[in-house]
Amino acid sequence: MEFAVPEELQTLSARIGTFVRDDIIPHEHDPRWTSHGPTDDLREELNGKAKTAGLFPFHVSKGYGGLGLSHFGKAIAFEAAGYSMLGPIALHCAAPDEGNIRLLEEVANPEQKKRFLEPLAKGETRSCFCMTEPAPGAGSDPGQLQTTAEPDGNGFILNGKKWLISGAEGAAFAIIMARTGNGEGEATLFLTELPNPAFKIEQVIDTLDSSFTGGHASVSNEGLRVSGDAVLGEVGRKGFRYAQVRLAPARLTHCMRWLGSAIRAHDIATGHARSRTAFGKPLGAHEGVSFMLADNEMDIHMARLAIWHTAWLLDKGDRASAQSSMAKVFCSEAIDRVADRSLQILGGPGITRDTIVERIYRESRAFRVYDGPSEVHRWALGRRVLEGRMQ
Amino acid sequence: MEFAVPEELQTLSARIGTFVRDDIIPHEHDPRWTSHGPTDDLREELNGKAKTAGLFPFHVSKGYGGLGLSHFGKAIAFEAAGYSMLGPIALHCAAPDEGNIRLLEEVANPEQKKRFLEPLAKGETRSCFCMTEPAPGAGSDPGQLQTTAEPDGNGFILNGKKWLISGAEGAAFAIIMARTGNGEGEATLFLTELPNPAFKIEQVIDTLDSSFTGGHASVSNEGLRVSGDAVLGEVGRKGFRYAQVRLAPARLTHCMRWLGSAIRAHDIATGHARSRTAFGKPLGAHEGVSFMLADNEMDIHMARLAIWHTAWLLDKGDRASAQSSMAKVFCSEAIDRVADRSLQILGGPGITRDTIVERIYRESRAFRVYDGPSEVHRWALGRRVLEGRMQ
Amino acid sequence: MEFAVPEELQTLSARIGTFVRDDIIPHEHDPRWTSHGPTDDLREELNGKAKTAGLFPFHVSKGYGGLGLSHFGKAIAFEAAGYSMLGPIALHCAAPDEGNIRLLEEVANPEQKKRFLEPLAKGETRSCFCMTEPAPGAGSDPGQLQTTAEPDGNGFILNGKKWLISGAEGAAFAIIMARTGNGEGEATLFLTELPNPAFKIEQVIDTLDSSFTGGHASVSNEGLRVSGDAVLGEVGRKGFRYAQVRLAPARLTHCMRWLGSAIRAHDIATGHARSRTAFGKPLGAHEGVSFMLADNEMDIHMARLAIWHTAWLLDKGDRASAQSSMAKVFCSEAIDRVADRSLQILGGPGITRDTIVERIYRESRAFRVYDGPSEVHRWALGRRVLEGRMQ
Amino acid sequence: MEFAVPEELQTLSARIGTFVRDDIIPHEHDPRWTSHGPTDDLREELNGKAKTAGLFPFHVSKGYGGLGLSHFGKAIAFEAAGYSMLGPIALHCAAPDEGNIRLLEEVANPEQKKRFLEPLAKGETRSCFCMTEPAPGAGSDPGQLQTTAEPDGNGFILNGKKWLISGAEGAAFAIIMARTGNGEGEATLFLTELPNPAFKIEQVIDTLDSSFTGGHASVSNEGLRVSGDAVLGEVGRKGFRYAQVRLAPARLTHCMRWLGSAIRAHDIATGHARSRTAFGKPLGAHEGVSFMLADNEMDIHMARLAIWHTAWLLDKGDRASAQSSMAKVFCSEAIDRVADRSLQILGGPGITRDTIVERIYRESRAFRVYDGPSEVHRWALGRRVLEGRMQ
Repeated sequence: MEFAVPEELQTLSARIGTFVRDDIIPHEHDPRWTSHGPTDDLREELNGKAKTAGLFPFHVSKGYGGLGLSHFGKAIAFEAAGYSMLGPIALHCAAPDEGNIRLLEEVANPEQKKRFLEPLAKGETRSCFCMTEPAPGAGSDPGQLQTTAEPDGNGFILNGKKWLISGAEGAAFAIIMARTGNGEGEATLFLTELPNPAFKIEQVIDTLDSSFTGGHASVSNEGLRVSGDAVLGEVGRKGFRYAQVRLAPARLTHCMRWLGSAIRAHDIATGHARSRTAFGKPLGAHEGVSFMLADNEMDIHMARLAIWHTAWLLDKGDRASAQSSMAKVFCSEAIDRVADRSLQILGGPGITRDTIVERIYRESRAFRVYDGPSEVHRWALGRRVLEGRMQ
Repeated sequence: MEFAVPEELQTLSARIGTFVRDDIIPHEHDPRWTSHGPTDDLREELNGKAKTAGLFPFHVSKGYGGLGLSHFGKAIAFEAAGYSMLGPIALHCAAPDEGNIRLLEEVANPEQKKRFLEPLAKGETRSCFCMTEPAPGAGSDPGQLQTTAEPDGNGFILNGKKWLISGAEGAAFAIIMARTGNGEGEATLFLTELPNPAFKIEQVIDTLDSSFTGGHASVSNEGLRVSGDAVLGEVGRKGFRYAQVRLAPARLTHCMRWLGSAIRAHDIATGHARSRTAFGKPLGAHEGVSFMLADNEMDIHMARLAIWHTAWLLDKGDRASAQSSMAKVFCSEAIDRVADRSLQILGGPGITRDTIVERIYRESRAFRVYDGPSEVHRWALGRRVLEGRMQ
Repeated sequence: MEFAVPEELQTLSARIGTFVRDDIIPHEHDPRWTSHGPTDDLREELNGKAKTAGLFPFHVSKGYGGLGLSHFGKAIAFEAAGYSMLGPIALHCAAPDEGNIRLLEEVANPEQKKRFLEPLAKGETRSCFCMTEPAPGAGSDPGQLQTTAEPDGNGFILNGKKWLISGAEGAAFAIIMARTGNGEGEATLFLTELPNPAFKIEQVIDTLDSSFTGGHASVSNEGLRVSGDAVLGEVGRKGFRYAQVRLAPARLTHCMRWLGSAIRAHDIATGHARSRTAFGKPLGAHEGVSFMLADNEMDIHMARLAIWHTAWLLDKGDRASAQSSMAKVFCSEAIDRVADRSLQILGGPGITRDTIVERIYRESRAFRVYDGPSEVHRWALGRRVLEGRMQ
Repeated sequence: MEFAVPEELQTLSARIGTFVRDDIIPHEHDPRWTSHGPTDDLREELNGKAKTAGLFPFHVSKGYGGLGLSHFGKAIAFEAAGYSMLGPIALHCAAPDEGNIRLLEEVANPEQKKRFLEPLAKGETRSCFCMTEPAPGAGSDPGQLQTTAEPDGNGFILNGKKWLISGAEGAAFAIIMARTGNGEGEATLFLTELPNPAFKIEQVIDTLDSSFTGGHASVSNEGLRVSGDAVLGEVGRKGFRYAQVRLAPARLTHCMRWLGSAIRAHDIATGHARSRTAFGKPLGAHEGVSFMLADNEMDIHMARLAIWHTAWLLDKGDRASAQSSMAKVFCSEAIDRVADRSLQILGGPGITRDTIVERIYRESRAFRVYDGPSEVHRWALGRRVLEGRMQ
C-alpha cells in the first residue's frame, strides 16, 4: 500500500502546472476558442508553446518522442494538464486522439502504424473515432450498429450515418465502425484518410460543451470505399472488443482531465468565497458556502483516489472493467457536483463567462453522458453484482 | 379547499397552449434567438403573432387592455406560456418587464404611469431594473449598494456600476436603485429614459442562459442626471421595500414560466423514451429511465402546488414572504432537476441543440442563482424558523 | 382555488392539538409503549381520555358517532393527531383499523357491517388486514398471492402463511386475502373472528418501528374454516380491487399522521437549535443547522400540499391513483428526511430515547417500505407517463 | 503507487473472515445481545472463541501478545472483523477500548501502563472514555467542558456530569476529562479505577444503536477523588491534544469496522435481490433494485479507498487531520446510504430483525453523529479550504 507519487511524476506535474498557468490560461478568452471548440489555428499555436516548453508530445511512447507514461503517470500528468481545458489540447493529450493512439498501438499493423499512428502520436495530425450513430443506430447500445461495410473487390463499401463524432472536422483520418455481417456482434473497424467526399460532414453540431477541437459532427458515409488494408485488426466480431480496448482507458483519461478542471473551478470559487462579502462577512464565513467548499474537497479527493486505483489496475494488466465503470460514474458525477457548487458559490458571476467555471459546468454535464451515461454503467455494475462478477 | 381551475382559466390556458405550439415553437430555431436572447426584431414579430391571436397583452390590468389576471390566473397562464421560452417573450409576460409593470402600478405617480407604465404595459416598450452591482456592491446582499445619487438642484446625479442588468440593451427606460444617504437601508429608485449617454452599456455579458431579450448587460452610470420627478415612490429608506414589492411576486412568475419549460423538457424526454431503443427494448422500458420520468412528474406536480399556494396567498393580500421563498427554492431546484433528468434521458441528443432541452437546462441552472440564490433563501427561512416567524 | 381551512376544521385541529399535548404526550414514556407498540391496556386508557375529551371516535361516519369527516377533514385532523404517535392510537384513527373501517363501509353487506364494522367503528374492537405473505408469496407484488381458499360445503378452507400483519395480536377479527382460483388476479377477501386456533400467530416480529398496537405478526392459517357469509364482497377477481379501495386512501392517511410526527420532530429540533450552544453561539446560528431547519420547513409544507391535493381529488370521487402514489412517495421520503435532519440537529441526544425523535426516525424509515415501497410507486408512475395515463 | 494488499494481511483477513462467519454470526440472535449491547457474559464467551482461533488479542502491539498491526493492517483486519457487529467485540478491537489502548500507549507513564494498559490490551478488562457532557457542557464543542477537577492535597476532586459514555457500565477504569483551570483549553485527563461510588452511573441510556458492550451511560461524578498519579500526561492545556491523539485514528477504526457491516448488509440485500421475485422476475432484474446494488458497490469501494489513504498517511507519521475528517464524513454517510439501500431492497424483511440489516441500519445512522457529526467536520474542512490549509 503506497499512495506516494514518485518524485519524477511530481516534477512532471509541477512543470505541466506551470506551463498551463503561464502559457495556456492566458489564452482562455481567445476568440478562437469557439462554441465548437478551439480552432486548429489556436491548437497549433498552443502546441507550439508546448514544444517550446519541452512537453510535446509527452504522454506517448518513447518511440514517438514521449515519456511512455504508465496509466498512473497519466493520472498525475493529465490532472495537471486539465487545470485549463485548453491544456490537453496544447499538450496533445485530449480526446479522441489520446484514445485513438492507444487503440492503434494495440491493434494496428506495422504499415498502419507508420501511416496513421506515427504522425498522430507526434502531434502532426488529428483523428476521429466513428462509432455513435443517430437513432435508431448505435448509441448507448453499440449493438444497434447500422452502418454497413459491404465487400467490394479487395475492399469494402461503407454506408451509414455517424453522429456526435468529435473532431471529425479537420481530422486527417477516421476510424469507422461498421457492420460486416448480420450476426449479433458483427462489427469491424476501418481506417480511412480524410477528407474524402464520401465521408460527408453534414453539420458541426451545436452542443452544450465546447472543448473538443473540431467540435462534434454528424457525418454521412455514402458509398465510402476503403481498400482491404484499411481493416483495423480483424474483420468480423472483434470490433466491439477493440472499441473496449479504447473505451475503458479513454473513460479514465477523461476523468483525469476533467478532475483538473474541477480543481480549477473549486479554486476560483474558493477565491471568490474569500474576497466577496455578503451580510457583513466574506461569503466563505457563511457555512452555507464553506460546506460547499468542504464537499468540493471531498469529491475531488475521492475522484482522485478512484482514478489512481483504476490506473494501478490497468498498469498491472488488469482489464479493470468494473473499476473503470465505477470510476467513470463516480468521477463524472462528482466533477459535475464540484462544477455545480462552484458556479453556485460564484452566484451572478458564476452564470457569466467572466470566469471559466461556466464552461467547466457545461463540459462536466456533458461528461455524464458520453463514454457511457451513468445509467448504462449502473446497469452493467448491477448485473455484475447479481452474477457475482465484481471481483 | 378547492384545487379546481376555473373554466375561463382552463380556456385561457388552452388558447395560450395552442398559440405556443402552433405559432411560437416553430421559431425556436430562428437564428435571431441569439446567445444574448431573442433580438428585438424577433420579439416584435412574435408580439405580432400574439396580437393576431388576441393574446397581447393579456396579463396586464384591464385599463391597459389586459385581462387583469390574479396571481393564480397568472400561474395558470404563464405555465402555458413558458412551454416555449419564447412564449413569454411573444406574450409580453417575461422578466423584467412583467415585474416592472407591477412595481410601477403600485408605486408610480400618475404622471410616471402615463409616461413609463402605459407604453410598457401595452407592450410598446421594454424596460430594465438596475439593482445588482459588481463586487463589492449589491449582489445577494442588496445592503452593499454602492451606486450613489447626489442631490443636484431639483434633481440628482447618479454614479456607479450596475451589472447583470437584464434587458438593458434596447430598453426604453431604466429603474435604478441608488444610495441617497449613508445610513443603513438608504436606497431610492429612479426612473430614467434610455438611451442616455451617461447610462453607458459597457458590455452585453456572455452568460449560461439566453432567454432574456437584450441579454444581461454591465452598465456604468457616469454622472447620470435625473430630475426630481424621476424618483419612484419616496426618497430615502423605502427603496428596498419597493424592490421587495417587485421581487416576491417576480420570483413567483419566474417559477410559473420555468415550470412550463420543465414540462416541455419532460415531454421531449418522454417522447424519446418511447421511441429510442437500447438493449432490446425502448429506453422507457428500462426502470433506470422510467424512474427518472416518475421523478419528473413528481417534481412538476409539487412545483405547481407550491406556486398555486403562494399565488393564492398573494391574491388574498398576504405578503407571503416565507412562502414565496420556499416556492422559489423548491421550484428552481425541482425545475433544474427535471431539466437535468430530461437531458440525461435524451443522452447524446440531450447535449446538442437538436432539442430545446439543452437551452432549458442552461436556463434552469441560472434560475437557481438569480432572484435570490437558494442559499440566501435558506438562510432567511432558517432565521424565520428560529425566531418563530414562519406563520 | 382555495387553500383556506374552514373554521370548523381549524377548531377541530386545535382541539386535537390541545388533547395530544396535554393528555397524550405525557404518556410517551409509559413503559406500556413497548417495542411491539402500545399495549391494549395503554390503548384503552388513552381511548378513555379521548372519550372524556369528546373526541372518540371522531373520524368515522355520523351513524357510528363520528363527525363523518371528508378526506380533507381527515388531512387536517390526522396531522394534528399524529403530533404524538400515540395520538392516532388514542383517537382510534390509526392503521390498520382506520382503513379497515373504510373498506367495510364500502364493501361489507348489512349483516357484516353489524357484526364487524359497528363495534370496530365505535372503537370497541381492533382488526387486522392479512394480505402480505412471506417469500415467495404476496409482497410488493400482490399477484404472487399463495394463500388458498378451497370451497368446502357452504364455506371455504383457508391455508397459507401471512406475514407482517399489523395488529393481528389482539384483533377481534381479520380480513384475509386468499386465492380462490388459479387464474391471474383471482383473490377473495374473507372475514373471520379471532382468536381462532387455525389462525395461528407464530410470532410478533421484532421490527424497526413500534407504533402499531399489537405489533406486526407472522400468522399461519392452517385449515382455517370460514362460512360462506364470510366472503367480503364477491368471490373471484375483485379482491385486489377491494384492496385498492382500502390502500389508496390508507396510504394517504399514513401520510397525514406521519406528517404530524415530522412536525413534532422538527419542533423538537428547533427548540434544541435555539438553546444548545457550540463554538460560541446557539446551534441555530450556524447555517449548517439553520439550513436543515429551512429544508424541514419546505419538506413539511410540500408534503402537506401533496396530501391536501390528493384528499381533494378523493373527496371529488376521483380514484386519484397516480396522485396518491405521488403523495406516498413524496411524503414518505420528505418525512423521513425531516426525521433524519431533526435527529442530526439533536446530535447526541438525537440517538437516544430522551426525545421522541429517535422513535419518529425509525417509524418514518419503515413508512418508506410499507403501503408500497417507493420503487413500486415509481415503477407504476413511470409506466403511466410512458402510456400517457397521468391525467 | 501500490494498492496491493500484502499476502500476510490477505491471510489475516481471510482468517478473520472465516472466524466471523463460522463462530460469530451464529451468535447474532443470542438474546444476550441486548438493546444496550452485548452483555459481558456474551462478550467473554466470544472472546474465548477468538482465543481458540488464535486471534485474541490480535491488533495490539507485540509486547501485549498482538500482531502490532499498522493502521493499514488494521484497515484490512477490522473490515473483516466488522462483517458481524459482534466481530470487533469478540476480537477485542471495538470502541472505546481500541482507542483507549492507543491513547495509553502514547501518553501513559510506565506505572499507568502496567496498571491500566496491560490488562486492557490483553483483553482482561474493559474501559471507558469520559469526555461528552449533557447540555450545556462539552458536546460537539469540547471547549464547553464543565466537569471540574479541584486540587486537593496530592490529588484532585472531580465534579460534573458525563453523558453518552460508551462502555461505562462494567468498565474496570475510566479516563475522565476535566477542567483544571478557567482558561480556554484547560483540560486534563484523569485515570480512575471502577467501580467507585463517586462515579455514579445514573442510567444506561436507551439509544438507536446497540453494539457497544455496556451501552452508553450517563454518569455523575460527585466528589470523585483521584490521587496525583491519576493524571494521564500533564495537568493543564494538553487534554484536548491527547483527546485528538485518540480521536483521529479512532474515527478511522470506526470507519473500518462499519465498512465491514455495510458489506454485510449489501451481501444480504444481494442475496435477496437474487431470490425474491416480483412482477415476474427476480427483484435484481429490476433496474430500480440493481441500480441500488451498483450504488452500494461504489460507496463501499470509495469508502475503502478513503480509509486506506488515511491509514497510509497515519502510518507515515502524518497527523492526517483533514484526511481523517474527510474519511469520517464520506465513510459514515456512504455506509449509512448502503445500509439504507440494503434495507429498502429487502423491503418488508428489511424492517424486521429477521436479518441483521435492521441493526446495521440503526448503527450506521448513529455513526453519522458520534466522533464528530458531519456538520462539525464540514465546518472544519471548509475553514481549512478558506485558510489554505488543506495540504
